[in-house]
Amino acid sequence: MQATKKIDQVDIHLGDRSYPILIGLGLMDDSTIWADLPAATTALIVTNTTVAPLYGKRLADTLRTRFQRVLVLELPDGEAFKTWQSLNLVFDALLSNECDRKTILFALGGGVVGDMTGFAAASYMRGVPFVQIPTTLLAQVDSSVGGKTAINHPLGKNMIGAFYQPLKVVCDLATLHTLPARELAAGLAEVIKYGPITDPVFFAWIETNIDALLRREPAALAHAAKRSCEVKAAVVAQDERDHGLRATLNFGHTFGHAIETGLGFGQWLHGEAVGCGMVMAARLSQQLGLVDHGLVQRLTALIARAGLPVRGPLLAQGNAEGGSANSLRYLELMRTDKKSEGGEIRFVVLDGLGQASVRPAPDAMVRAVIDASCV
Amino acid sequence: MQATKKIDQVDIHLGDRSYPILIGLGLMDDSTIWADLPAATTALIVTNTTVAPLYGKRLADTLRTRFQRVLVLELPDGEAFKTWQSLNLVFDALLSNECDRKTILFALGGGVVGDMTGFAAASYMRGVPFVQIPTTLLAQVDSSVGGKTAINHPLGKNMIGAFYQPLKVVCDLATLHTLPARELAAGLAEVIKYGPITDPVFFAWIETNIDALLRREPAALAHAAKRSCEVKAAVVAQDERDHGLRATLNFGHTFGHAIETGLGFGQWLHGEAVGCGMVMAARLSQQLGLVDHGLVQRLTALIARAGLPVRGPLLAQGNAEGGSANSLRYLELMRTDKKSEGGEIRFVVLDGLGQASVRPAPDAMVRAVIDASCV
Repeated sequence: MQATKKIDQVDIHLGDRSYPILIGLGLMDDSTIWADLPAATTALIVTNTTVAPLYGKRLADTLRTRFQRVLVLELPDGEAFKTWQSLNLVFDALLSNECDRKTILFALGGGVVGDMTGFAAASYMRGVPFVQIPTTLLAQVDSSVGGKTAINHPLGKNMIGAFYQPLKVVCDLATLHTLPARELAAGLAEVIKYGPITDPVFFAWIETNIDALLRREPAALAHAAKRSCEVKAAVVAQDERDHGLRATLNFGHTFGHAIETGLGFGQWLHGEAVGCGMVMAARLSQQLGLVDHGLVQRLTALIARAGLPVRGPLLAQGNAEGGSANSLRYLELMRTDKKSEGGEIRFVVLDGLGQASVRPAPDAMVRAVIDASCV
Repeated sequence: MQATKKIDQVDIHLGDRSYPILIGLGLMDDSTIWADLPAATTALIVTNTTVAPLYGKRLADTLRTRFQRVLVLELPDGEAFKTWQSLNLVFDALLSNECDRKTILFALGGGVVGDMTGFAAASYMRGVPFVQIPTTLLAQVDSSVGGKTAINHPLGKNMIGAFYQPLKVVCDLATLHTLPARELAAGLAEVIKYGPITDPVFFAWIETNIDALLRREPAALAHAAKRSCEVKAAVVAQDERDHGLRATLNFGHTFGHAIETGLGFGQWLHGEAVGCGMVMAARLSQQLGLVDHGLVQRLTALIARAGLPVRGPLLAQGNAEGGSANSLRYLELMRTDKKSEGGEIRFVVLDGLGQASVRPAPDAMVRAVIDASCV
């Protein structure tokens, strides 16, 4: 006897671009999940060399019950390959197989696969439909909501892309069982993030359940994924095009991006940099007189328990311009971030537990925070 | 005493993506045209090596009254350069100059510059604003309405792109005085197109005024540009995403694209291929019993008077599969067109003067039309 499968659903409300996120165990093998997709001859699964051996064939077999032709394209794995060259492999596959504009793309993998497949779908023949099947916690709780797609440019991360919404997102929690521990922790950084910026209750829930999450208990993972998607969905629904409110979702990311760029991509995982970046952003909030030291300590402790770094790497040695060369390098990197405007860095800071806003801060204060936060 | 400048305006109604098209003589030098653009530090003019020496400095000088920093990027000229490599030159310029997401791009040139600049604007940081200043008749009457942006892929034309609307389009009729005669004629192909598919009165007006248009009389050019934009705007407003009605704007283009691809890009101009393609499409309409021979003759005569080819090139020699190898090659090329669905070619045909629809046609009939229409 088959038990009734529990499927959580979060609806992303964006007018005629609305879509559901389905969350549950073993969803990938459930062909009923795909029944309501629009009619198409061809499905193209875009995945990578790590995920393909684990789930490629399983997904292809399920999709074959629904599509005449199921193609699988394996891209090289890793942020270093989030380039035009990899993106062009998707276009090559689509065109050499004479895929028409009804072809549906399936992004099977983490954030890199999702971002590239989404941008390929946005651009191929000026837009074909796509479905996301995120196989990392980070992708399930972060990139599955919001429609941000992009590739990197040698001069900057995520600089070329589109806002483009999927038909649906299917988070199969079973895929998290094959996720390396380091990547699970990196995903938890984004889960933790939603607490301090919007939801004190969720923050307390994570503090209570962090060990269950690290043990990958399905019920805990399901709640974390669902609540993260709900919070992000509520923010994105109010600011799809990233003009204001949505910027608060970048809590920890301004410092985090500096770490990623400064070390070179691939050294720290995105979630690790964000974890450490949240500590810096919380400290900056305290320096600005917005929150007390207790909250900074509470957040830092939770990030450490998740297995994430809470101290930043040194990006430069020695002194420069009345402070450390290291903090100057952080500043420099943050000034060229996509979010900066006319050279002014915009920091996401906490106004209290569950409240965030975006504002500038004096260079000297920012440098002091960095100096106090680095190894 | 300065005469009051006559500016025609066509408004494109697309909700919060609405924009005006301004048409007049000498608009580029008129700084009041730019007064209502959003605040930005930097303007990047994207143009090509042919147009830059003619208008690059003039536009830059006018824009300097409005922007702190005006950058000019010259791309190589021609359809052959409508590639990722050229597009990436725009991203390189934006990133190496640390342009933020408020930077406004200005497309100064023909359709290739417009398509590439538009796609660069759509993709840079997931979307920055852009303005079109089309300097060819083709770009003024065709690509200035509809928001289609794209680059070519080695396996197909316009295969990678986005729907993305400009802030405004400024058609300075003075730029048409430097346009080579062959390109003027190519632009007239798209002007003529709007008659048979939607507007018998406009069709008769073109027949009466074709010589004035060829002499580049400003009043005639202004009316042709305005009416073409109005017709296209009405169609696009009903079908922005190209799901149905908008396909009728591709009258002549299915055959035309086969000519362009078959000969290799750069042999015939797009407008020349479309002119000839309209003759073929009209003949197919007659074979389908939709229009009489008189209309086919009238359209063919007008296309010839515009200086456009009315007979197709041979794309192959000899016989194949019960007909000419040439008509088989045309069929083959049309089947891989972006507009075909599941291998079925969708032809835009006339249902009478001022009425068009999209439908399939028997291969044998299409081949007979091609055989009767080629050199």
